Amino acid sequence: MGPAELPEPPYYAVVFASTRTPGDNGYEETAERMVELGAKQPGFLGIDTVRGPDGFGITVSYWRDEESIAAWRRDAEHTLARKRGHDTWYESVAVHVAKVERRYGFTR
Amino acid sequence: MGPAELPEPPYYAVVFASTRTPGDNGYEETAERMVELGAKQPGFLGIDTVRGPDGFGITVSYWRDEESIAAWRRDAEHTLARKRGHDTWYESVAVHVAKVERRYGFTR
Repeated sequence: MGPAELPEPPYYAVVFASTRTPGDNGYEETAERMVELGAKQPGFLGIDTVRGPDGFGITVSYWRDEESIAAWRRDAEHTLARKRGHDTWYESVAVHVAKVERRYGFTR
Repeated sequence: MGPAELPEPPYYAVVFASTRTPGDNGYEETAERMVELGAKQPGFLGIDTVRGPDGFGITVSYWRDEESIAAWRRDAEHTLARKRGHDTWYESVAVHVAKVERRYGFTR
């Protein structure tokens, strides 16, 4: 799998960096569900996600605009998942909401 | 290790998503050197980086402003490393340069 394919900037990126607590505790199932559900939201453009063996992970989701991000944040199932993330799954979390101004890259 | 600790926004994030080609070919040594050298640049604020077992990875570096990013891009050793990345180490790369408008999170 390569990086997400996206339209030309500007668009928004939500960088979600986190460290997991030990044990699954229902995490994997919900994480997969959130990727599936998030991808159906209006304004969703793509996602890059990876977690290392030490439990540290980065997920970057890409969105058309701030309103798309806000609407997904209001989704009831997503809100419940975030609460479980805060209470159980994550040792620490940092979320950066950023406006992408330019992009470059290549595929071999 | 948890997410990078950063000052209040605004600041810039450079999201580097990539898929590695098979084999090391000098990659790990250079990758470590680039993290070390990048951290010494004026305007460097922090870095989050992770690569999964399938070769897909995300590195997000955080910078004070666009000029800091441009100056690091002009660094000779970094420029050579990017060329080796393009020619040898990466199957595909996407770089998103973004202005972070807000941040939130927690540490347990």
